[in-house]
Amino acid sequence: MTDVTQIVLAKRPVGDVTPDCFREEKATLPALNDGELLIVSHYLSLDPYMRPRMSELRSYVPPFEIDRPLTGGSVGEVVESSNPKFAKGDTVIGLLNWATHTVHDGKGLRKIDPTAAPLAANLGVLGMPSFTAWYGMKHICKPKAGETAFVSAATGAVGQVAGQLAKLAGAHVVGCAGDEQKCQWAVREAGYDACFNHRTERDYGAVLDKLCPKGIDSNFENVGGKIFHAAFARMNNFGRIAFCGAISEYQDAEPLAGPPKMFAIVQRRLTIQGFIVSDHNAMLPDFVAEVGGLLKSGKLKSRETIVDGLARAPAAFMGLLKGENFGKLIVKIG
Amino acid sequence: MTDVTQIVLAKRPVGDVTPDCFREEKATLPALNDGELLIVSHYLSLDPYMRPRMSELRSYVPPFEIDRPLTGGSVGEVVESSNPKFAKGDTVIGLLNWATHTVHDGKGLRKIDPTAAPLAANLGVLGMPSFTAWYGMKHICKPKAGETAFVSAATGAVGQVAGQLAKLAGAHVVGCAGDEQKCQWAVREAGYDACFNHRTERDYGAVLDKLCPKGIDSNFENVGGKIFHAAFARMNNFGRIAFCGAISEYQDAEPLAGPPKMFAIVQRRLTIQGFIVSDHNAMLPDFVAEVGGLLKSGKLKSRETIVDGLARAPAAFMGLLKGENFGKLIVKIG
Repeated sequence: MTDVTQIVLAKRPVGDVTPDCFREEKATLPALNDGELLIVSHYLSLDPYMRPRMSELRSYVPPFEIDRPLTGGSVGEVVESSNPKFAKGDTVIGLLNWATHTVHDGKGLRKIDPTAAPLAANLGVLGMPSFTAWYGMKHICKPKAGETAFVSAATGAVGQVAGQLAKLAGAHVVGCAGDEQKCQWAVREAGYDACFNHRTERDYGAVLDKLCPKGIDSNFENVGGKIFHAAFARMNNFGRIAFCGAISEYQDAEPLAGPPKMFAIVQRRLTIQGFIVSDHNAMLPDFVAEVGGLLKSGKLKSRETIVDGLARAPAAFMGLLKGENFGKLIVKIG
Repeated sequence: MTDVTQIVLAKRPVGDVTPDCFREEKATLPALNDGELLIVSHYLSLDPYMRPRMSELRSYVPPFEIDRPLTGGSVGEVVESSNPKFAKGDTVIGLLNWATHTVHDGKGLRKIDPTAAPLAANLGVLGMPSFTAWYGMKHICKPKAGETAFVSAATGAVGQVAGQLAKLAGAHVVGCAGDEQKCQWAVREAGYDACFNHRTERDYGAVLDKLCPKGIDSNFENVGGKIFHAAFARMNNFGRIAFCGAISEYQDAEPLAGPPKMFAIVQRRLTIQGFIVSDHNAMLPDFVAEVGGLLKSGKLKSRETIVDGLARAPAAFMGLLKGENFGKLIVKIG
């Protein structure tokens, strides 16, 4: 019998997520059944994909359930185990509740070495967002020298890695981000050739024409909406679009129409490929080898924001959807 | 000095192509320069992709020029040659003028055996449209047993082959066409499981829900517009869209917006790939081997409309854009 603090979905948002969509509550966890584990959460990853899960969308993961805890990629420690695969004291990564403790059946849970890297890094630059960036760049965008790569949400958890990988591949790399400070970090630290502020630029087409004078060969799309439309209209022949997310559209109550002139897909022989990185977990070792190596050699930088305390997760998540975070957003729980 | 009758682009259409976009004229061809050929045209293929070429679009082929003859895939015979690669009497296939005769530099021209098949078949079921269907099905849609394939413009030159290839691959195949007679041919002759009339059906979503109860796994898209949007909304996880054409949009003066909820590309891990078959000419031998074999064994049917006389080409082309042809549309010139 363990007392737990957890955050449940109080109601589904329509349009913007509001504080009353969440409810913090106390609960008492039952004794473990055979095969179950009790895990104490240390870090919780907050990611844009959670927004669609709050709605009843036909999506790649089932929606969160009303009055049940939200879940998210987390690092925690096993405090009690009735599962032969895990022992008390193991550090694990996987989907845990937005909670101080989670009872888990062990499925999809992975043991990690807590001494190999800061624990939070397993949720960021060594984790799912970075794996996402690596997969999309390596297997869809395939940037190369002489080409132009465009990355929206250039300093987000995914974008910051995507942009750096494109730069390492030799491409001219252009990004966009939500404030001047992020744009400066993108250029000075992450090596982007240019990054524009999508909150102050009025004409995305004009700024892309200026920053991508040879058009766009690959687009790593995290934002969707008008930024995607402007990039789509500037794709070169045989261009590749890795469609990873559409954060600008998640809060829209009414769906936005797609870009005009879809026939450009034919005229310019474009490929648009949507992907969810968990479909490609078999490639995790390749990712760890390549990106881990880049990190060790100092060729890859990362930036994260760590928020302290589970109670602040809802506000941090609402801020994430408005672009208020800088880099990977992680909640330190305990 | 050869007298020629030719049809030139008199003006660029805005919206619907009208008769005054064309002008038939007489001309006298100059003597051949070194490397040139004089070819008499036998058959001219009329294809939807010619419509974008009439406008000044950024496209995969340069636009037709005002006051110059339109061009199209044609079969003809060499009547005079200053090119060592071709001799008088050779039967050739390639882009020729909408004209009785064309002076050609030989580039992109290919000799064919005039006894292997009816000459016109080289423009249809053994030619570019069929190669297009084969490439899109084989390399993008990849239909298989248990899956549902949707083909728009199901009885067009491309669609009729695409649908039959999907059926041969074992898929449940659904099409749409512009009148009852075509729909009946699709089901009775080409083996479609179902084909709906997109002129009488008001609710494309509802009819697709009925005919594709398990959703759509691959979409061979020839039509674009609202039919594409309805199919897009019904794509299953890991669905493939071979984007081949968008005939419904070619006559629009104002570009249509793309489908809403583009984020479905991510959620359902869709791939949309535009293609132009001439990029893949290296695969022609594979196509000829496979589709030629199917034709010989009677496993592939084809339907064509042959219009007699160059003067009727403009009206036939305007009819093609309105879906008035049945199967591959070819003009017999001389």
